[in-house]
Amino acid sequence: MREKIEYDEALNLLEDSKVEILGRERVFLHDALNRILADDIYATINMPQVPLSSMDGYAISSKFKNHAEFVVLDDNPAGKDIIPTIPLESPIAIKTFTGAAMPHGADILVPIENVEVIGDKIKILKCSEVGEFIRDIGTNYKKGEKLLSKGTSLNANYIGLLASLNCVFVNVYEKPKVGILVSGDEILELGEQSSLENRIYNANGHLLYAKVKEYGGIPKLYPILKDNKELIEESLQDALKSCDLVVSTGGASVGDYDFISKIAHERKEEVIFKGVKIKPGQHVLYARFFGKHFFGLPGFPNATLVTFELFVVEILLKMCGSTMQRLVLRVPLGVDITKKDKRLELRVCNVVEKDGQFCINFDGKKDFLSAILNNFCPITSCKIGLVVLREEEYKKDSVVEVIMLG
Amino acid sequence: MREKIEYDEALNLLEDSKVEILGRERVFLHDALNRILADDIYATINMPQVPLSSMDGYAISSKFKNHAEFVVLDDNPAGKDIIPTIPLESPIAIKTFTGAAMPHGADILVPIENVEVIGDKIKILKCSEVGEFIRDIGTNYKKGEKLLSKGTSLNANYIGLLASLNCVFVNVYEKPKVGILVSGDEILELGEQSSLENRIYNANGHLLYAKVKEYGGIPKLYPILKDNKELIEESLQDALKSCDLVVSTGGASVGDYDFISKIAHERKEEVIFKGVKIKPGQHVLYARFFGKHFFGLPGFPNATLVTFELFVVEILLKMCGSTMQRLVLRVPLGVDITKKDKRLELRVCNVVEKDGQFCINFDGKKDFLSAILNNFCPITSCKIGLVVLREEEYKKDSVVEVIMLG
Repeated sequence: MREKIEYDEALNLLEDSKVEILGRERVFLHDALNRILADDIYATINMPQVPLSSMDGYAISSKFKNHAEFVVLDDNPAGKDIIPTIPLESPIAIKTFTGAAMPHGADILVPIENVEVIGDKIKILKCSEVGEFIRDIGTNYKKGEKLLSKGTSLNANYIGLLASLNCVFVNVYEKPKVGILVSGDEILELGEQSSLENRIYNANGHLLYAKVKEYGGIPKLYPILKDNKELIEESLQDALKSCDLVVSTGGASVGDYDFISKIAHERKEEVIFKGVKIKPGQHVLYARFFGKHFFGLPGFPNATLVTFELFVVEILLKMCGSTMQRLVLRVPLGVDITKKDKRLELRVCNVVEKDGQFCINFDGKKDFLSAILNNFCPITSCKIGLVVLREEEYKKDSVVEVIMLG
Repeated sequence: MREKIEYDEALNLLEDSKVEILGRERVFLHDALNRILADDIYATINMPQVPLSSMDGYAISSKFKNHAEFVVLDDNPAGKDIIPTIPLESPIAIKTFTGAAMPHGADILVPIENVEVIGDKIKILKCSEVGEFIRDIGTNYKKGEKLLSKGTSLNANYIGLLASLNCVFVNVYEKPKVGILVSGDEILELGEQSSLENRIYNANGHLLYAKVKEYGGIPKLYPILKDNKELIEESLQDALKSCDLVVSTGGASVGDYDFISKIAHERKEEVIFKGVKIKPGQHVLYARFFGKHFFGLPGFPNATLVTFELFVVEILLKMCGSTMQRLVLRVPLGVDITKKDKRLELRVCNVVEKDGQFCINFDGKKDFLSAILNNFCPITSCKIGLVVLREEEYKKDSVVEVIMLG
């Protein structure tokens, strides 16, 4: 068990942690949206399979390239049941529409705007080059070409591409089941009433529920736990048995009622780290209990959110099989900053676009100590990020790292 | 009906188009993830309601600030059923944990690391200031304060905030139903077999299905339409009746089999624009048939994708009630570009992070003419965007606009 380690050491320990991707499952194409592809995908045919016209026009043979007048023999729309053949004895054209196969024997496509139609003949005003306006065999992709990599998060564009490949079913990685334990005598479940003014609603449970879904896991929300060591131990054991990853909030600090911390102390040979020199979230804990990944997150919602994003997501994405990387930008500070504390601070900021550049501000942000989620929920929608403050002082316009959130 | 208009004019016409947000509906908090909030949300109470300790420590009264020794009277964990009162006759301390209400009469919190415990007494090594380490009433938010704006897309952070407000149900905007019509004799539905090499699978239908879901609509996929005017007209009428917005692909060009185009011509007083001077997607059409929004998109999948993103999304997001804005960055080009065509070109690029900055490249991109989705599906996952090329030539390092896609 390493205690009170540096931020970068925590990240390294997580990076080195062995994470097994779960199994693969086969889902219908529409259900594959936002899932993680579990196979590399290769083209099984050339696309197009035959040369296709990419304009509405007239197909001719280059043998008659220097002729001006052509007899129009046939109409060749896209999807015609027979691909026509152009006779090569005389200057013949076949009207060939966008997406239609080029007639056999034709290698020039003259767009309709470059011909004059005279009865059943055409006069070519401007002849095209051989192959121009024609999509040749394999232009899109060639048989055997790698088109998609496993680990890709399938957005709508990929769904379209998979459809073009006639993939009715797609192999994706199973979603990990993530147990969420919330502890604290002060926590009320939503809808519960209390006349006591020292109660707070279960923000953490529902925050984590939604976060797990956003990052591709299946959340399992456990009943709220009172500050009772036996109860917490029992639920933790159950969660470790039935889930792939377990996250708790609260009870991770050093106080008399911090039972997660006490349990971790009893199993310290399985704890990878306990305490990271960051603000917020210094009491975060990472362990492998019974081989399962366990994170003890602090109970203040802002610290819960930040430690989930920084640490849990590292493991969760790997478990989902995703190759997605956290985006970290370097952006100039708009203000001077003097930290109150020597710890590395992750300060939430708004990331807004101005003149085509990202810049950051702290508009509407309240003091971190106030332990609030509002800072992460801008009233006028914009992206948010975490500014990584390593030094004690920053001057305006210093360039800082910003970890982009969502 | 305006024909072959400039890109900016098309965007202005869309911006001026009247879009009605659908109704509101009440959904359970967990189902509100990724929905659009339909109400402004104001705090109904102060948070915290009473001063809370933000550290584990000892609560004392400032009346005895200069005393060193205090008798420890009581234990005050978070969520205790009674908030204790501190007697003011003598120097008394109450051990008060993180998140617990400050005892009545106490205004100083001395963290445990700043005291020495001697039996049932403590000796204060470093006294705190009044209010320090205490979250005062309303620090998070004050009663009546605006916390969230309607039109916000609810990510996990917002779900957490709503949970903290005891919002079991949330008012969100109804999702618009988007009809998707795909036409073309060459189109095969997935799973269908054909020995003909001029057939292509229904990429567009499934691409649009997934896009509509991504942008918050409910897709309704119609049976694939053959190139038959009556059939197309009938389906279009049905879709216009039963959907809030209708999108078709194919048949929008000028050829003999482009029936969407012919239908639009017959109803030209309802067509807002037909043809935009862009590449790809010049044949895109926008109309208000029977008051409903209709987009005739081109049939080449890349043109379908680009025109959906540029034009349909403008209307769809407004209809969803979303205040989300398309992100447009200004990024230096990594290469020289000479366009083949005078039309404004929207060229797909990879947007990758390098040394904390976004930069773009065209790695793995094939010629646009090849009408392919691959360009929008990078093999190594990265963001993609559309470079807006207005000029005929660009030198390396020129700064260009990049419309970020997804």
